[in-house]
Amino acid sequence: MSDAVTVTFVSPKGDSPGGGSPDGGVAARKVRSARGATFLEAAQAAGLEVTATCGARGRCRSCRIQVLAGDLPPPTIMDEVQLGHDEVHERFRLSCQTRVIADCKVMVSPPKAEVGHQILSGSASAEQVQRVGLDSGIEKRLVRATAPTDEDHQTSDAEEILLALGKASATPLQPDVLRAVPAALRDADGAVTVTSFNGSVIDVEAGDTTEQSYGMAFDIGTTSIVGSLTDLNSGAELAAVGGINPQAVYGGDLMSRIAYAQYEPKKLQTLRARVLNAVNGFIKQACKEAGVETRHLHKLVVVGNTCMHHIFLGIDPTYVGLAPYAPAARDPIVASGEEVLLKSVPRARVCFLPIVAGFVGADTVAAVLATRIYDSEETRALVDIGTNGEVVMGSRDGLMACSAPAGPALEGAQIRHGMRGAVGAIEKVEIDGDVFNQVIGDSPPIGICGSGLIDAVAKMLDAGLITDMGLLEYDHRDRFSAVLRERLIKKDEKEQFVLAWAEQSGKEEDITLTQGDIRQLQLAKGAICSGVMMLQQVMEVSNEQLHELMLCGGFGNYINTASAVRIRLMPALPLERITYYGNAAALGAQMALLSETERARAEKLAREIEHVSLASHPDFQEIFVEALQFPVRKMPATESPSAAAT
Amino acid sequence: MSDAVTVTFVSPKGDSPGGGSPDGGVAARKVRSARGATFLEAAQAAGLEVTATCGARGRCRSCRIQVLAGDLPPPTIMDEVQLGHDEVHERFRLSCQTRVIADCKVMVSPPKAEVGHQILSGSASAEQVQRVGLDSGIEKRLVRATAPTDEDHQTSDAEEILLALGKASATPLQPDVLRAVPAALRDADGAVTVTSFNGSVIDVEAGDTTEQSYGMAFDIGTTSIVGSLTDLNSGAELAAVGGINPQAVYGGDLMSRIAYAQYEPKKLQTLRARVLNAVNGFIKQACKEAGVETRHLHKLVVVGNTCMHHIFLGIDPTYVGLAPYAPAARDPIVASGEEVLLKSVPRARVCFLPIVAGFVGADTVAAVLATRIYDSEETRALVDIGTNGEVVMGSRDGLMACSAPAGPALEGAQIRHGMRGAVGAIEKVEIDGDVFNQVIGDSPPIGICGSGLIDAVAKMLDAGLITDMGLLEYDHRDRFSAVLRERLIKKDEKEQFVLAWAEQSGKEEDITLTQGDIRQLQLAKGAICSGVMMLQQVMEVSNEQLHELMLCGGFGNYINTASAVRIRLMPALPLERITYYGNAAALGAQMALLSETERARAEKLAREIEHVSLASHPDFQEIFVEALQFPVRKMPATESPSAAAT
Repeated sequence: MSDAVTVTFVSPKGDSPGGGSPDGGVAARKVRSARGATFLEAAQAAGLEVTATCGARGRCRSCRIQVLAGDLPPPTIMDEVQLGHDEVHERFRLSCQTRVIADCKVMVSPPKAEVGHQILSGSASAEQVQRVGLDSGIEKRLVRATAPTDEDHQTSDAEEILLALGKASATPLQPDVLRAVPAALRDADGAVTVTSFNGSVIDVEAGDTTEQSYGMAFDIGTTSIVGSLTDLNSGAELAAVGGINPQAVYGGDLMSRIAYAQYEPKKLQTLRARVLNAVNGFIKQACKEAGVETRHLHKLVVVGNTCMHHIFLGIDPTYVGLAPYAPAARDPIVASGEEVLLKSVPRARVCFLPIVAGFVGADTVAAVLATRIYDSEETRALVDIGTNGEVVMGSRDGLMACSAPAGPALEGAQIRHGMRGAVGAIEKVEIDGDVFNQVIGDSPPIGICGSGLIDAVAKMLDAGLITDMGLLEYDHRDRFSAVLRERLIKKDEKEQFVLAWAEQSGKEEDITLTQGDIRQLQLAKGAICSGVMMLQQVMEVSNEQLHELMLCGGFGNYINTASAVRIRLMPALPLERITYYGNAAALGAQMALLSETERARAEKLAREIEHVSLASHPDFQEIFVEALQFPVRKMPATESPSAAAT
Repeated sequence: MSDAVTVTFVSPKGDSPGGGSPDGGVAARKVRSARGATFLEAAQAAGLEVTATCGARGRCRSCRIQVLAGDLPPPTIMDEVQLGHDEVHERFRLSCQTRVIADCKVMVSPPKAEVGHQILSGSASAEQVQRVGLDSGIEKRLVRATAPTDEDHQTSDAEEILLALGKASATPLQPDVLRAVPAALRDADGAVTVTSFNGSVIDVEAGDTTEQSYGMAFDIGTTSIVGSLTDLNSGAELAAVGGINPQAVYGGDLMSRIAYAQYEPKKLQTLRARVLNAVNGFIKQACKEAGVETRHLHKLVVVGNTCMHHIFLGIDPTYVGLAPYAPAARDPIVASGEEVLLKSVPRARVCFLPIVAGFVGADTVAAVLATRIYDSEETRALVDIGTNGEVVMGSRDGLMACSAPAGPALEGAQIRHGMRGAVGAIEKVEIDGDVFNQVIGDSPPIGICGSGLIDAVAKMLDAGLITDMGLLEYDHRDRFSAVLRERLIKKDEKEQFVLAWAEQSGKEEDITLTQGDIRQLQLAKGAICSGVMMLQQVMEVSNEQLHELMLCGGFGNYINTASAVRIRLMPALPLERITYYGNAAALGAQMALLSETERARAEKLAREIEHVSLASHPDFQEIFVEALQFPVRKMPATESPSAAAT
C-alpha cells in the first residue's frame, strides 16, 4: 500500500474536465494524489481547472464534485452548509473541503442532484447557505462610545456603551461583563466591540474585534472526546481536536463509570475534573492551532450521552445507572463558561443540547439533527455507534429511539491491540491466501481500530477462520493453508489470530485478534443490531420498508459497510441502503453551534422522540441472543428478512 | 453613671398602666430597668401588664408605646413594618423590639398617631403590615414528587419536581440547582421543598424546610460593615452583626482606597478578597447566632457606596476616583452567591441596589427608601453620615442629592482615641465645672466614638475651651478653673484636652482630644454641612422652608442632635426639626430584603434622583470655608438663617 491514490475526474458530459486539455475527447482524466489532500488540491496539482470562487474557503458551491465510485468521505460541516443534506446524501461534496481517502472517481461541476428523496422542506434553491443559516446567535458590533465627561453628572460606563448600541433599555450587564467595561471604554478611544448572544450582552472589548468571532462544538463520548473550532462569521472549520476521555481509567463503559462515582461526591468531582481539564486543554490546543484567542470563543455547544452530560455539570449520575435510568433533567441548558467551570472561556455561552432519556442523550439528538431523519418522507434508521449504541428510527411522521450497551470495543478499547483511528491503526484487512492490512498513515501497524476490527472479523468469517457462533477455528486449523494455519496460534493460554507478525509490526510484537476480542465485538454488534431489530419490531418496519440505514459514529476510521453487514452489525439490508455518515453527533453539534434555528430544533426533537426501553421489553433477550451470532452465509443481502422484521 | 435607668410608664388617660395596680389614681409608674432591656421586659419585670399578642416577636402592634420624653431609640425594621413611617416619626415604637437606652417617659397603648405629616399615601389603616408588605420574592413550597418509576420511560427528576409544582413549562433549572435535584427527590421519600425567587427556581431540598426561609441585608461602608439576618416568613430580625471593613488598612477614605487599587488588578483583588471574607464571616456568624443554616439564606441585599459596590463585584474603581467620577454601571444587579464569590451562600440571590452617581451610591438609595422622603409633602433633607456624607433634599415633587467627602472621623477613625460605638466608648460628655463622661456599657473609657466626639466638642465650645475657629485654648488656659486648666495639656508637642485621666481609663493612659482631632472633626462636619447648604442654594430652600432634617448614619452611638447643631454639623435649624434616624441605609437594605416592592422602588428612585456635583460647582469652596467654622453663640436655633439659605 502506498499513500498515493488514483482519482479519476470526469466532467458532466463525459469529456475530461479542465477545458484546455488537449485530449478533449477522452472521457476521464486519472490523477495520482496524496491521501489526505483535498480533491481541489489533487485537481490543481494535475493542472485541472476547477472553479473555486471563494478561494477554497468552503463559502460557495462552485467547486462541488460528486463521488461516482469509491469510498465516500463523510460530509464536513461546510458540505452541510453549502450543499444541504440532499446533495450530501447524493455523494456531492465541496472539493476544497473534502479529502481524498481512497481510489475513486468523481465528477466535477456536476448538475444539481437528481433528488432521490427530498429531506429538506422547500426547494433546493441557490441559497443553499440558508439550509444551515449562519445564525449562531452571536452578534459582535463595533460601537463608538464616549466615556462620561464633566458634562455628564449622571451616567455610567455601561449606559454609554448601551446607548451607543441603541439598547439603552436592555437587561443590566452582569458582573462578569461589567468587570471588562471601564477599561474597554477607555483603551481604544471609545471604540468598543460589544458581543451579544441572542440579544444579551456577554462581553465588551476595546477596539474592533468583530472579525474574531469563534465557537467550538464538542462531542463528549464515554471513550473519546472530539472538538472542532469554527469561525462563526463564515462557518469555516478552523481546527479539529480530540483524544481519549481521561475518565476512561475509571471504567470503560457507562455502567462502570457510574459505579465509580455512585454515592461518592468526591469521586464524581474526580471524574468531572478530568473531563473539564481535557476540554479546557482541547480549547487551548484548538485555539493555538487556529491562531485564535480563547477570549474570542463566544459560544460552545456540548453534546454527549446523559452520563457524560451529568458528570460534566457535576450532577450525580447514580440514578442514570439504576432502573428506570432517569436523568436529573432533560432540558437544554445554557450557562456561562464560568458557571460550568470552563475556566479558559469564562464569558462564553456554553449550550448543552437536550436529552431524550437516560440512555438516549444529547449526542443522539445531535445525530438526528445532522442526518435530518426527522424530515424524511420514508422510514429511515440512524445508528450512532459509541460505547452505547443509540438507534433512532422513523420519518417525518415520528421517531422512536433506543439505546444498546455496546461497550467500547468498536472504539478500540478493551481489545488487546485496540486503538483509536490514528496513524498505525489497521483500518482494513484483506484475506486472500494471506493477510493484507491497510494501515492509517501507511506506517507499520501498531494496533487495530474499530473499522479495522469489523473488517478483519468479516474477512475471517468469509475465510472460515471464525464460525457463525464466533469461535476461532484453532482446533481445526489444519483445514487452512500453511500461511493462514501459522497465524492461528495459542499464546498465554489464549487462542488468537495473527494479523501482523512482530517483524512487520511497529510495536515489534505480533498484532493479533484474540478469542476474547471476537467475543467483545460480538457483544457490541449484537447489542446494536438488536436495538435496530427491536425498533423494527415495535414500529412494525420490515427490512424492505427500511429505506436507509445511516451508520454514524466517531469510531475507527471510515467503516466498510459491506463488512458491517457481514458481521451483522445491522440487519441484512442491501448495501446500497446503508450509508456511512461519519461522526453525526459531532456534526450536529457543529450545526447547533452555527445555527440557533438548529439548536431550537434540537429542543423540539428531544421532546418529540419516543423512547423505547430495551431492558424492560419482554422480547429483548430473545432478539439479543439471535443478534449475537454471525450470519451463516457470506452475503445476506438476498436472504429473507430476519426474525425481527416478520 | 449606672447601667440602670428609669422608665416612666403612663397610660393614655393619665392613669398608671397595668390595670390591677392598687394606686389607680397615680398618673405614672416609675420603673428601674437595665439599659439594653426591651421596654416590654422592663414593664413585665415591674409587673405591669402590656399586651403582646404575638409573643414579643414583632409580628403585631399590640405592645406599641410612644416615647414622650427622653432619648428616642432609632426604629427597627419591625417598627417600620408594623407601625409605618408616620407613627415611627411620631415616636411610636414596638415595646418588644425597642431597647431602653436612657431615662425616658413612655405611654403604653397610645392612641393612633396625631398625624403630623402624612408621608405615606393612603390612610394609616389597621393593615399596617402592608406598608412594608412581606413580599421578599422568595417563595418556598413543599411538594410531593415521585422519582421516575419503571412506567416513566421518558421523564426526568427535574420534570417530576416541576410537575408537582405545577410549573411544568418553567424555565429550565440551572446546573447549580440541578446538582441538588437527584438526592432531594429521593432522600425524603418525594417530599421536596422548592425555593424560587420571583418565580425562578433557585434551590430544591429534601423534606419540608418551608419554615426556614431567611435573608440578610448588608451595608458595606468604607469604614464599617453591618449586617442583619431576617426571617423572610415573619420579617423578624434574628441577628445583627458588624465590624470594621478590613479594607481599611489600605486607606481610610474612598480616595485613598481607590488610589491603592488604581490600575493594579492584583490590589483590586486584595481589596475584594478582604470584603468578601468579611461578609462570608458575618454570614456564618449571624447564622450561628440565630441557629440558622447558611443554606437557608435565600436572598441577600447589599448596599454600599459606589466604590464599595465596585470592589465587592471586582470592578475596577479607578474611574470612580477621577473626574467626572463615573461608575461602571448604575443599574441594580442580581446574581447568585456563587457568581459574586459569596461561597457560604452559593445559591442565594444577591441583590445590589442601584446607584445614583459615582459618589451617591446604593447606600443613599437605601436611606431614601427607609426615610420615605420621596413621598413627603414638605421639603425635607436626609443627611447620611459615613466616610462620605450624602445629602438628599426634596419632597414628592423631586429629589436632589450630593456627596461630601467627610473622611472617617465621625466613624471614630483617624481620631487619636477614636473607636466604634462599642463598650468602652465615650458617647456623651458633660462639662459642668469638671468633665463627666457617659461610657457605653458603663465601663472605664477606652476611647471615644463619633457621637461622643460631636458631644465633646459641642460642650467644649460652650465652655469656651475651643474657639469658633476651632483652636484649643491652650495658650489661654489660665482663664479656666483649675480643674479644666489641668486638662489642657501639651504632650509630644501636641496640644490636647484630657477627657479621662489615665487612672480612670480602661487603657491606663489619658483619653484626650488633640488639636488634630478637632481639625478632623471640622473637616468632616464642614463637608457635610456645606453639602446641605449647597442643595439649599441650588433648590432655593431656606432654613425656614426645610421642614425636617433626618440625620442618619451608623456612626458612634445615638447622636445628640443639639450637639450636632452646636458644632454646625448642619445648618442652624430649630432642634425639633432635626430627627436622628439611625442607620437608615441598613434599614433600607432590610426593607428591600423583605419587600420586592421596595426593591423595585429603589430602582425607580435611583433613576429619578438628580445628582449635584459639589466639586464642579463654582460656589462650593466659599460655602465650605464658611461651614468649617463653629457657630459663635451657644444655641443658634433662634439665629437668622445662614448665608446658604439667603
